[in-house]
Amino acid sequence: MELEEIIENVTNLIENKKIKELREYLENINSADFPSILENVDEDKIIMIYRLLSKEKAAEVFVELDHDDQEELINYLTDSEIKNVMNEIYMDDAVDLIEEMPSNVVKRILANTKPANRKIINELLKYPDDTAGTLMTTEFIDLKENMNVDEAFKVIKQKNLKKETVYNCYVVTIDRKLLGVVDIKDLLTAEREDLIKDIMDTNVVKVNTLEDQEEVTKMFEKYDCIAIPVVDQEDRLVGIITIDDAVDVIQEETLEDFEKMAAITPDDGESYLKTGVFKHAKNRIIWLLILMLSAMITGEVIENFEAAISTLPLLVAFIPMLMDTGGNCGSQTSTLIIRGLAMNELSTKDIFRAIWKEFRVGIVVGIVLSIANSIRIVIQYHDMKIALVVGLTLICTVVIAKLLGCILPMFAKKLKLDPAIMASPLITTIVDTLSVLVFFNIATLMFKI
Amino acid sequence: MELEEIIENVTNLIENKKIKELREYLENINSADFPSILENVDEDKIIMIYRLLSKEKAAEVFVELDHDDQEELINYLTDSEIKNVMNEIYMDDAVDLIEEMPSNVVKRILANTKPANRKIINELLKYPDDTAGTLMTTEFIDLKENMNVDEAFKVIKQKNLKKETVYNCYVVTIDRKLLGVVDIKDLLTAEREDLIKDIMDTNVVKVNTLEDQEEVTKMFEKYDCIAIPVVDQEDRLVGIITIDDAVDVIQEETLEDFEKMAAITPDDGESYLKTGVFKHAKNRIIWLLILMLSAMITGEVIENFEAAISTLPLLVAFIPMLMDTGGNCGSQTSTLIIRGLAMNELSTKDIFRAIWKEFRVGIVVGIVLSIANSIRIVIQYHDMKIALVVGLTLICTVVIAKLLGCILPMFAKKLKLDPAIMASPLITTIVDTLSVLVFFNIATLMFKI
Repeated sequence: MELEEIIENVTNLIENKKIKELREYLENINSADFPSILENVDEDKIIMIYRLLSKEKAAEVFVELDHDDQEELINYLTDSEIKNVMNEIYMDDAVDLIEEMPSNVVKRILANTKPANRKIINELLKYPDDTAGTLMTTEFIDLKENMNVDEAFKVIKQKNLKKETVYNCYVVTIDRKLLGVVDIKDLLTAEREDLIKDIMDTNVVKVNTLEDQEEVTKMFEKYDCIAIPVVDQEDRLVGIITIDDAVDVIQEETLEDFEKMAAITPDDGESYLKTGVFKHAKNRIIWLLILMLSAMITGEVIENFEAAISTLPLLVAFIPMLMDTGGNCGSQTSTLIIRGLAMNELSTKDIFRAIWKEFRVGIVVGIVLSIANSIRIVIQYHDMKIALVVGLTLICTVVIAKLLGCILPMFAKKLKLDPAIMASPLITTIVDTLSVLVFFNIATLMFKI
Repeated sequence: MELEEIIENVTNLIENKKIKELREYLENINSADFPSILENVDEDKIIMIYRLLSKEKAAEVFVELDHDDQEELINYLTDSEIKNVMNEIYMDDAVDLIEEMPSNVVKRILANTKPANRKIINELLKYPDDTAGTLMTTEFIDLKENMNVDEAFKVIKQKNLKKETVYNCYVVTIDRKLLGVVDIKDLLTAEREDLIKDIMDTNVVKVNTLEDQEEVTKMFEKYDCIAIPVVDQEDRLVGIITIDDAVDVIQEETLEDFEKMAAITPDDGESYLKTGVFKHAKNRIIWLLILMLSAMITGEVIENFEAAISTLPLLVAFIPMLMDTGGNCGSQTSTLIIRGLAMNELSTKDIFRAIWKEFRVGIVVGIVLSIANSIRIVIQYHDMKIALVVGLTLICTVVIAKLLGCILPMFAKKLKLDPAIMASPLITTIVDTLSVLVFFNIATLMFKI
């Protein structure tokens, strides 16, 4: 069913005051669709709709809302309603919520959280940002190696966790060291008396609590798993990360890369439209200032060749084309290298192979562009010499741009900086200066000015 | 265990001819690690290692290899070994393999595939590229609504599918229409006599075979599911898409967006290092040519103001800074808009809100940059008038760049084009021309030249 249809139905049911039908109807809507629905009903109806939901559904819907809406909703909720939410949601979602809410709201949330959960939340809040520890949830099935399959099923039934967390069960020792993993499918196909230690897989893909979240997503991609167990420094199992959270991180990190590569200071959370004008401006201005000041160097270079310009003013007309082409070539290469590094397809030890490849690509591309450009110049200005100067400059510019686009991100990676800062804007600025330098030097040489 | 350690152990075992230990050791290595291992042993050892693997492991490892290595390996394999691989792998992986292999290899593969699977493969090959149909696998658990939980478990045991495909079971009618979904966790917590129809969830998130794969990944992100059922035009269940395949598509599509935004013709499959020099050059040259020719328009504009330049040659020195800043501002905005559209955070109907936001951001950013720039000019050249001309031009350029960066991708989306083609390179070129135009017009006006 289309979202528009759902929204229409909900609005109709509200208007006609068919509360019982509405309640039933709402229960069958996917929680992920609620944010769009609530956005489209009158504000005073939101809390009414929310209160019609069952306990489980209400908590599920709450998690789907964005932080602003969560905050607003909490202000309307009674303490017991907050209590319900905090009992139902995953621990990682609870931590997320607490990190984003203002302190007065946090106080109210924690006051309505049961002590055991409050303790877990406080533990989770201690992990550094963007690590596996902040990403994990503490709900998982732990089995002992001497249990049999039947007993394992009992544990699963008893714990009654939400679905994403039961597909893999983890086998731990008494002091909680991780021994192995049992897939639910293996439990189902085993005999009821089989011992867990005989069916478990001891070759477990796991991460440490302090592992960077980007590395965690790469493990999901590489090993095609749906959950990865998280262990502490003593190899004790403390939580698991489920793939749905990993997918969210992939999206976040990708957006961050896009932003960095476009010279924007990354800013997590808020969507484009919800971010205010001044915050948008702030996120963009720092890099613009740096790049603007660097671009002035190109201006200084041009100033130094004032004599050449007054002798042959036509030269100036080729500057934009040279600058743009150099910039584009550089950004092509840097984008490929930055992505390659991000995806683990490339590593810094491939630098010489990459340089050699880019050098050859640069020669080929440079020659083709030069030919196209020379033809135009000869037709338009009937001047072979200018065509030659511009053509030679183009080849040099393209090669320089490709080499810098390759070397700078690799270098940043080597220095443990994020290669993405070496993206097009910075490379463009450097290539600009170099291309103008090359251009005027070749021109003064050829025209003896 | 670290990969380097594994590779060392394998090499040692081979050198010391400890075949039995090697066999055992290999069986415990994660299949996803094999490509790196095989890359690091002598070529003549690869087939030896491969033959030591159990049937299941051999097929798993085969799927992990990239297409070049698969092709090479197939040449060494006997018919019965190929048969084993084709019996063990998922249908979507089989289709993938057949699409990528040269025709002589395809012939050999199909000759060693059992007729039932051959038929499925042929069906799957008919779906248009990049649709749900090409992404799905035909292995899934289908239940009938009148079965009880006990019978359902029997079906699961009997089918003995690989793990990713058993977490969700699908309930279908006799003519295969999709009725509902049962999570394995619900089966486990239900009573053995409960009927499937009483525990199934009828509110199923599903896709049509012809749905675009990018839309499919968005559904995974939105609904946090681990598998999505695929139905044909008659709403009959024909396959399922598992989240690990969706994650691969997310990566692919992201890379494509990065490439398009850097003016590279996207080229699926091959990694950076494996792509040849001429292919790299080909993928980059088309856009470079288009952009180079467009950049010449900026040159023409400058030519038209030759008189102004000879009167005040200093003006030329500001062109690079204006061009770069305009380009950077445009690419910041277009990146945010393109990402917003790709992530469904923005839609074309938000265009006026976005324009209004960018206009205000542009004014703020423009004024800040102008002030910084004016201070520099006054210090360096002691010329208030030049500072004023450059400052005014900067504000105009920034605002124009931000507006174009917002409008053009939205427009492309409206025209059902990919907004990513309206990324920085194209916008930079347009903004360049406009900023130079504005600059010289303001300058001629102010200096009366």
